[in-house]
This record gives sequence, structure tokens and C-alpha cells, in this order.
Amino acid sequence: MNHYPASIINLIRNFSQLPGIGEKTAERLALHVLKAPRKAAEALSQSIMEVKDRARLCGMCYSLSDSERCNVCSDATRDSALLCVVEQPADMVSIEKSGGFRGFYHVLGGCLSPMDGIGPEEIRIEELVKKIAAGEVREVVLATGTSLEGESTAAFIAQRLQSLPVKVSRIASGVPVGGDLKYIDQLTLKRAMETRHVL
Amino acid sequence: MNHYPASIINLIRNFSQLPGIGEKTAERLALHVLKAPRKAAEALSQSIMEVKDRARLCGMCYSLSDSERCNVCSDATRDSALLCVVEQPADMVSIEKSGGFRGFYHVLGGCLSPMDGIGPEEIRIEELVKKIAAGEVREVVLATGTSLEGESTAAFIAQRLQSLPVKVSRIASGVPVGGDLKYIDQLTLKRAMETRHVL
Repeated sequence: MNHYPASIINLIRNFSQLPGIGEKTAERLALHVLKAPRKAAEALSQSIMEVKDRARLCGMCYSLSDSERCNVCSDATRDSALLCVVEQPADMVSIEKSGGFRGFYHVLGGCLSPMDGIGPEEIRIEELVKKIAAGEVREVVLATGTSLEGESTAAFIAQRLQSLPVKVSRIASGVPVGGDLKYIDQLTLKRAMETRHVL
Repeated sequence: MNHYPASIINLIRNFSQLPGIGEKTAERLALHVLKAPRKAAEALSQSIMEVKDRARLCGMCYSLSDSERCNVCSDATRDSALLCVVEQPADMVSIEKSGGFRGFYHVLGGCLSPMDGIGPEEIRIEELVKKIAAGEVREVVLATGTSLEGESTAAFIAQRLQSLPVKVSRIASGVPVGGDLKYIDQLTLKRAMETRHVL
């Protein structure tokens, strides 16, 4: 690598800082940039800084946004009585992709994890409580993960909202669609059985 | 992906233009850039444009360089009687890494490939002949690849230099160091046998 000119060594080094990009891959990417049309390199270079300059947290739901309000929060056709609580912006993107929810979101920015020193003050639980206390929301859907931390975060929030006049629900956890029962782990199967519903 | 803000979608799209980077990896890289310190993002963004602005071909050997003469060509301690001919700048980098050569280089920029319409005029053979005709070089080491095209390029150059007072050699091809004979292909073994040397 040290036999390349400084500008290329520098680019290889910067590429290899990215997650999952080793030195060999970084070298391949750098040589690609070298050969690529100037316009393509410019587009990549500029879009990196644009993300740093423009992307921020939505003032309403704390998901990623280019402006004060994200696309979802500025969508007047959504049901303001429904609020879905997720851990991270990427979780919200997954739910949006599924098309299964037409309300608004609240991104916690993580989940409770006493082992890592993350308590209720470290994630946006009080912001959520304030939002609910304002009165418009009728149902809070807790869509934190199904890990131990995600479950206890959901339980903590449900407890915290108990005194407020709002319905609190939890997304179903069970056998994935298309999943073969013989390959599903026992905990998931147990859960699917416990939360069975009448057809 | 369409549920991210425009700046992030744009960065994902640009990352996924890179070779070997799919949409999922591009998404992961973009979210990494988003979280990374501004300085790291700036370094990456700037180094991309720096490669486009600074990297060019060395005026002597046609390898990659940040200036008119590359590091190797500006190295006065090298043996100017030795000239190594390679296909691509990356080949020169490999030989430099090996530390097995202390002369100068000539990068052809490809190899003869009639099927792809690449004839002697498309690669820098005349530039090589001119260099040799200048008289300082005593030995030309042909280090083009051992593919069919690489071999015929070497043969063509050897033929072309026949009339000039210069020794023409070819890098050895044979069993790789540490290679187990039972796993080596027959052509390589045959070649290794043909070009055996006395100890």
C-alpha cells in the first residue's frame, strides 16, 4: 500500500475506517474512484458531507430527517391517535417498509440496559410521557425489540404510562411468516402459543 | 430505503455504485457516516476528491503518481540499467512490495488482446522502444501476467526489441513458494519443469 502515491494511500486509509471494509477492499474501492468519472466521485464526496450537514433528528419523533419535521411527521393523512414506540430510526424505516402502520412514531434512541449504564433518563421516555399527556394519542404501540432489553423497556414504558388514559399495546411476537415450525426456537414457539388469538 | 431522508438515500445510492457494495452494505456505510465524527466524514469526502485532483500518471513510467515523477522514478539510488515492464500500476505496487527489484518500471496500461481490439498501438509499446533506444537500459524484465494475453504481450515485446542492444528477460513462472505440488495445475508444473535451473 505504501507504494501508491500519498493521495491514494490516504483514500485507502479512509475507506478502511468504514465498518466491514478491510484494507484489500479499501484498495479496490480507491482504485475504482481513481478510474470512475469525476462526476461520480464528486457525487459520492458531496453526499457524504451533505449527510453530515443536513441529516438531523426530527423535532417530533426523533427519527432521521433533513428538516425540522421528518416526512412521516409532516404527513397530515396519518392517524394522530396512534403512536408507535421504537428503539432506533432504522426500526421505524422497517415498519414503514412493511406498510403495516399509519400512525406516528416516537424513537427512543436505544433501550434500557442497566449493564451498559443506560437507564430511563438516557432514552427518550419522558419526552414520550409528555407527548401522551398532551392527550391526542389513544393507543401506544410498543415496538421495541424482542431481546431481553427490548422487552424490559416495553414493560417499563407500559408501567410508566399506566396512570394515563391511553391504551398500551405490544407488537406480536411469534412464528415468522413462512417459518417452518420445526426450525423455530422454543421461546418463540412458547410465546406464539401464549399469545394465540381466536380466528 | 425510501423512508430515509433524501440526503441519506442519496449517500446510500452513491455508496452502492462502488464495486462489491450492495444496497444493504451501502445502507450500513451511510448510517456509519451519519454517526461518525464530522472530522472522519470530512477526511473521507476530501480524500475522494484529492485522488481525482492529484493522482495522475507518472511522466516517466506511467504508474500512478501525485506529481510529474512518481516516487520510484525520482529515486536516484535505483539501478537505471534495469527496466521492468508491467501491465498495470497495481502490478508495479506488488513487485515493489516484494522488494525483489531495484530498477525502474514501464507500465504498459494493459496487454495485447486482439479479441478486445487491443493492439500494439493501444498499449505503451512504442514509448518503451523509445526508452530502450535512448541506450541507458541494459536489461528489460518482462513482468506481464502469465495469462495467454500476458504471455503473447511479452513475446511481442521481446520480438520488437530484438534489434536493440538490450538483454530481454521474463520473470519466472512455476510453483508458488509454499505451494504443494499435488495441488498445482499441470500447465504450471510443466512450465516449472521446462524452466528449471541448475543449483
